Amino acid sequence: MEGYDLLAVAQHGQVQVDGVLERFFSLAKNRASAFGAEYVLLWGALEANTTGGKRFRPRMVFSAYQSLGGTDFEAAAYVGAAFELLHTALIVHDDVIDHDFTRRGVPNISGTYRDRARFGGASERAAEHKGISAAVIAGDLALFNAYRLVDRSGVDDVTRSRLLEVVDDALFASAAGELIDVDFATAIDMPRVDDILTMERLKTAVYSFECPLQAGAILAGASEEVITTLAEFGRDIGIAYQIVDDLLGVFGEEAQTGKTTIGDLREGKRTVLISYATSTAAWEQIEPLIGKADLSEDEAERVRAALVSSGAESFAQGLARYYGNRALARLAEPHIPASLRIELYPVVDAVLGRVK
Amino acid sequence: MEGYDLLAVAQHGQVQVDGVLERFFSLAKNRASAFGAEYVLLWGALEANTTGGKRFRPRMVFSAYQSLGGTDFEAAAYVGAAFELLHTALIVHDDVIDHDFTRRGVPNISGTYRDRARFGGASERAAEHKGISAAVIAGDLALFNAYRLVDRSGVDDVTRSRLLEVVDDALFASAAGELIDVDFATAIDMPRVDDILTMERLKTAVYSFECPLQAGAILAGASEEVITTLAEFGRDIGIAYQIVDDLLGVFGEEAQTGKTTIGDLREGKRTVLISYATSTAAWEQIEPLIGKADLSEDEAERVRAALVSSGAESFAQGLARYYGNRALARLAEPHIPASLRIELYPVVDAVLGRVK
Repeated sequence: MEGYDLLAVAQHGQVQVDGVLERFFSLAKNRASAFGAEYVLLWGALEANTTGGKRFRPRMVFSAYQSLGGTDFEAAAYVGAAFELLHTALIVHDDVIDHDFTRRGVPNISGTYRDRARFGGASERAAEHKGISAAVIAGDLALFNAYRLVDRSGVDDVTRSRLLEVVDDALFASAAGELIDVDFATAIDMPRVDDILTMERLKTAVYSFECPLQAGAILAGASEEVITTLAEFGRDIGIAYQIVDDLLGVFGEEAQTGKTTIGDLREGKRTVLISYATSTAAWEQIEPLIGKADLSEDEAERVRAALVSSGAESFAQGLARYYGNRALARLAEPHIPASLRIELYPVVDAVLGRVK
Repeated sequence: MEGYDLLAVAQHGQVQVDGVLERFFSLAKNRASAFGAEYVLLWGALEANTTGGKRFRPRMVFSAYQSLGGTDFEAAAYVGAAFELLHTALIVHDDVIDHDFTRRGVPNISGTYRDRARFGGASERAAEHKGISAAVIAGDLALFNAYRLVDRSGVDDVTRSRLLEVVDDALFASAAGELIDVDFATAIDMPRVDDILTMERLKTAVYSFECPLQAGAILAGASEEVITTLAEFGRDIGIAYQIVDDLLGVFGEEAQTGKTTIGDLREGKRTVLISYATSTAAWEQIEPLIGKADLSEDEAERVRAALVSSGAESFAQGLARYYGNRALARLAEPHIPASLRIELYPVVDAVLGRVK
């Protein structure tokens, strides 16, 4: 999700969030030094995996917060940083589950530790094991401290309680989505489009859109009506985003997205596109190529052509537009202040702008 | 650590802690049902891995709390339950790291899910992967909710903050210890006795003794002096406990400990016993047998005899007694109330009673 920028979204809170995270990691590394140099390195690796992202979730917190009149940017930065750490924890453990040693071409925590162990002369198996072990530990630290950052935001008791519930909802949903995703991998039948949307929403969209927007609104003291509508907006735009993400994973421009357009096909990733294609006559051509680890660029091109001719591509585009429009309709509700609309329209545009 | 009972420690708070955990899991399963039956099953597996233990850490919380005059057993039960969930999270992820599918002879979460996937026709590799994935997710849920239970204990802000810091300390130390343990596995040299004690203390003793005792004292509103002394007591008795645990892993009575006396030797576990033995003439005999996956009972008996004749056994026994006596000396300090002494002497006795 970090691979392409929602350029239209202002860089709200970036400096403040970076500041909170910098202080957090600086304190942690300092504290870790009493436990040995290796532990400081682990915290450093976690920090490296937390920085450099687009701070997308903190921006959602700030978008809602600022447009709803919030002015305590320090508190918002803590809440934003909490979502950022939660995101780090989830991708670090997702990579453990997927046995991935890189993310967007760069070694992740597992990869960094695997490579170090290799360099130290460990066998491939031992090196991989070392990498995965370090990632399990680092993810635990990030997860736990996501909670801790909300607690340190300095807000009143009632607000803190509600924010913690939202972060809890985020993890609760993401774990459910991850479990469904794991089940997909061993399932014999291709999951239905609906099931894929549910999985993608739970695993990623809830904690990336719904919950950060809700948290920003709660922090700003918005009415229940506004909080609910924002959550619904977040759900719809989040689903649209995931569908577009699936489209870009096959039809995108690598230079723009930073993501290959062959990886998803080689991996046999269950996406809306592929699920739809199973119900079409083109499936015969596509099926033998999906999940082929050594899929060539020519073969990938054939799959892409079949996904277009079968109507799978336009179905997915239409579905993304449908959810994008639903999101817009939420913003049109009368209780949504104009400032919030002005803030969030560009988010919808940025998501849908990717669908030609 | 759950394998043998500290019988002398009263069953303080067991009912209350069980009640808190029962309500917690009942709510979680109810909430999970909106995400599908599989998610309810995962929560059920987590619950099964949390219940049935000796509730050792909650008992440490209650021991300190009650002897220091605390009377809000509901709050103490929440804090105790938080440590229990933290313990579950740590062992579930420790099993992921160690690639263990059973704990004390019973399938753990990884094992349960591996076996289910096997039964469903998955390949061995896919089934193991499914098991480990489920355990990563379940451990995350337990870890996050450990924090959440402290937050729900209903105590005042200042106390809550301090309790959260203690739980944070517990995880911070345990992660450091786990990392050192992972490093031991690939290290070429046998770690020194001191390094093993540090690792065991950080990985297990801090969150099992030091932190729960501290938390109980904080909750009871004890003086800083008492809190500090209790933490020191916890550190010393925790180290003693770990040394005894290592001894029992080789010389124990399986019927009593519920733990084989050959597993540690087959695994090549780095213990105080083994580390000491490297510096003795008996090492020549021992070395080729340590970490031998198919070590026979006869060979194990030879290792045991060499560990006795080399003085490793009596060294470890002496070290355990030394730390046990240090723990007793802490309790003798004048600011420790008699009620706390009466409560904790039996804990020391129970630990040292295992050293013949």
